[in-house]
Amino acid sequence: MPTIVVDVMPKAELLDPQGKAVTGALARLGIDAFDGVRIGKRFELTVEGEVGDDLLATVRKVADEVLSNSVIEDVVGIEVVE
Amino acid sequence: MPTIVVDVMPKAELLDPQGKAVTGALARLGIDAFDGVRIGKRFELTVEGEVGDDLLATVRKVADEVLSNSVIEDVVGIEVVE
Repeated sequence: MPTIVVDVMPKAELLDPQGKAVTGALARLGIDAFDGVRIGKRFELTVEGEVGDDLLATVRKVADEVLSNSVIEDVVGIEVVE
Repeated sequence: MPTIVVDVMPKAELLDPQGKAVTGALARLGIDAFDGVRIGKRFELTVEGEVGDDLLATVRKVADEVLSNSVIEDVVGIEVVE
């Protein structure tokens, strides 16, 4: 069954408190290899049958209007896997 | 600056209430193209300089031990971008 992956991240110009917390936690654990951490969401939409242009248009619409909040988030990727 | 993306998803055998809620919401909006939705996390770790084997080993360790809860989640991808 094909899966469509939609990646949503907080906008680059906004603070990401979750990511900041993880960055701090890593530093406290003595792991200083990373400059920063940002945390977003990964949606896996499963579909039956073929993934055509119509379906991809629907995915794009859903990604922009339902899965992300365009005030604070960007859809950074839409990819068909399997 | 290189970015390392770590993808974490709820284990396949576990319910995903967030994903179920989105599946239901899409159905109520009249969008029936999708069989199911599962929601995971996407971490973007930024690093300075080169991404070597040592750093990737650290990323793998951090992904397994800090960024995911292995009881309920799987690390489904680690990828270097840019």
